[in-house]
Amino acid sequence: MTTKRIGSRAVRFGTPPVIRSWAAVGGPREGRGPLGGTFDRIHNDSTLGEKSWEKAESAMQREALELALEKGGLPASALDLVFAGDLMNQCIASSFALRSIGRPLLGLYGACSTMAESLLLAAMAVESGCAAMAAAVTSSHYASAERQYRTPLEYGAQRTPSAQWTATASGAAILAGTGTGPRITWALPGRIADLGVTDTNNMGAAMAPAACDTLCALFADTGTGPADYDRIVTGDLGLVGHRLLRELLAREGIDPGDRLDDCGMMLFRRREEDVHAGGSGCGCSAGVLCGHLLGELAAGRLHRMIFAGTGALLSPTSAMQGESIPGICHAVVIEAGEGRSEGWNI
Amino acid sequence: MTTKRIGSRAVRFGTPPVIRSWAAVGGPREGRGPLGGTFDRIHNDSTLGEKSWEKAESAMQREALELALEKGGLPASALDLVFAGDLMNQCIASSFALRSIGRPLLGLYGACSTMAESLLLAAMAVESGCAAMAAAVTSSHYASAERQYRTPLEYGAQRTPSAQWTATASGAAILAGTGTGPRITWALPGRIADLGVTDTNNMGAAMAPAACDTLCALFADTGTGPADYDRIVTGDLGLVGHRLLRELLAREGIDPGDRLDDCGMMLFRRREEDVHAGGSGCGCSAGVLCGHLLGELAAGRLHRMIFAGTGALLSPTSAMQGESIPGICHAVVIEAGEGRSEGWNI
Repeated sequence: MTTKRIGSRAVRFGTPPVIRSWAAVGGPREGRGPLGGTFDRIHNDSTLGEKSWEKAESAMQREALELALEKGGLPASALDLVFAGDLMNQCIASSFALRSIGRPLLGLYGACSTMAESLLLAAMAVESGCAAMAAAVTSSHYASAERQYRTPLEYGAQRTPSAQWTATASGAAILAGTGTGPRITWALPGRIADLGVTDTNNMGAAMAPAACDTLCALFADTGTGPADYDRIVTGDLGLVGHRLLRELLAREGIDPGDRLDDCGMMLFRRREEDVHAGGSGCGCSAGVLCGHLLGELAAGRLHRMIFAGTGALLSPTSAMQGESIPGICHAVVIEAGEGRSEGWNI
Repeated sequence: MTTKRIGSRAVRFGTPPVIRSWAAVGGPREGRGPLGGTFDRIHNDSTLGEKSWEKAESAMQREALELALEKGGLPASALDLVFAGDLMNQCIASSFALRSIGRPLLGLYGACSTMAESLLLAAMAVESGCAAMAAAVTSSHYASAERQYRTPLEYGAQRTPSAQWTATASGAAILAGTGTGPRITWALPGRIADLGVTDTNNMGAAMAPAACDTLCALFADTGTGPADYDRIVTGDLGLVGHRLLRELLAREGIDPGDRLDDCGMMLFRRREEDVHAGGSGCGCSAGVLCGHLLGELAAGRLHRMIFAGTGALLSPTSAMQGESIPGICHAVVIEAGEGRSEGWNI
């Protein structure tokens, strides 16, 4: 079976790449959350002993990749390609994290959708034979993001109820053509949806239409529906965007029920931690995937899931120039090692 | 012949993707340069009638892609994937350029290497069957880059002799599995080289070691040498980086002679235009490739060339924090339609 473009946008991987190994690293707040126990390492000092928040984020991303390699018993030299991205201007968290790894680096920018984008491209690289092994890694840091996108922490700005809290986290996954582990069977690259939302404190609303567009296309192209998946996890719409996505899906006649969840809602105890609508940032969905979700797949508690990364493609400059917020959502279907895809009629 | 990873890092495309169509758009200074006549459109007003430099850059990038589609007689709906990137924080030039295209978008960040990175990934997507047709598009704008990276133009800052001038330009290329046109036969993804250069006004020096590393790996992995190519074009080292690259290659026993050139040196009449070491920016190598170089390949005046995009993966923040400048260089081999790869013993 060869790799094929199916329907309007979906890609079916003929020989599904295997996620051989993965790791997640988080900060103190992530450690206190309901998924704290699923991280490979939690730092109680969010500076990681570095002199700046940006350097701390780089150190965390490097650690996530090193842990993923270590858990898989793999040397860095085994990586033919590393796909990486983050929220920092010019993606410096990734460049400096991976500066000394000595392996080919392809930098990505998809805002909070970057983990899904990197998995999609790593799967494509491995399945096509361009790479025997490829890594997908992203990160975000609350303090580096706040001062770049909003205000320095010392300013103590008030947050609106719809605002999300950038996760201090990183996740890394290592894909290969052979071996055991969860497999990426399908991917669906997202297109921009922009319904004119201009409130930078409500990015969930700006991203929800893109998530709806991508999930509907994935269901249509694969001939599946929500019932064919154990979990459908977006990342990161937060509570406001999540509720809006349910409304948009309902208009399309789709009711995902309690299968639909969101990494931004899963990562934190929202009320206790005062994170308002939930988590966000490239590291949020990466941390939830490479901690909790891949663990559930490996343990056989999940069999087939959709991981749908959502990104808000704005910048402070575009917002100040009065532009609305373009949303995007990239999705991959991940199945447990034993596979169930025989059941699909494609 | 299937796609294969060869040697340390090279990828040979089993069925080389065809560059079906391409277009370049530039600003007034680019129009006055030696390659002015090779652009599909030159704007004498670098605002493009827009209200901000950022919006002007987006408009230019959109135009480049639209012209490439038009020249190929292709509708936007034919594109399964668009790979795009630019220098703006959060890559907003690309997001807003492609906001309404309605096709899947994968955002990239590779600084000035982004055009080569996007070609590499578009070729991988097409050759693997993940996309029947894919676009690679990047842009930069002198005025949007100056105020983001350095100072507002009104400030009138002095420039050092080693400084480069960000091109106001965009280039788009459309790749497909079938049809006629130049073909991408090999690719070599770059790894970071950082020799400790901290002078942000001398990015050519920071990028030259990465260019040397990538070219040496490409020669070794493909079993070729400079004499196997009509042109070896980096983008964009400028004069200082170009001279340094020649020195570094000489230490490896490689003399590329006059085959080696640089998009940053080709784009402007350096002395008359006061651009110091030459051009730079994602749009520089994209404009030179999608104007001059692909035209030469199509006309049969070039047969096989290396396009090696170089990027400086710093940000103003990393520079202010005292970090050195990580350089990277991604390369693709492009051959004229008739092909000569039979001559290679691989």
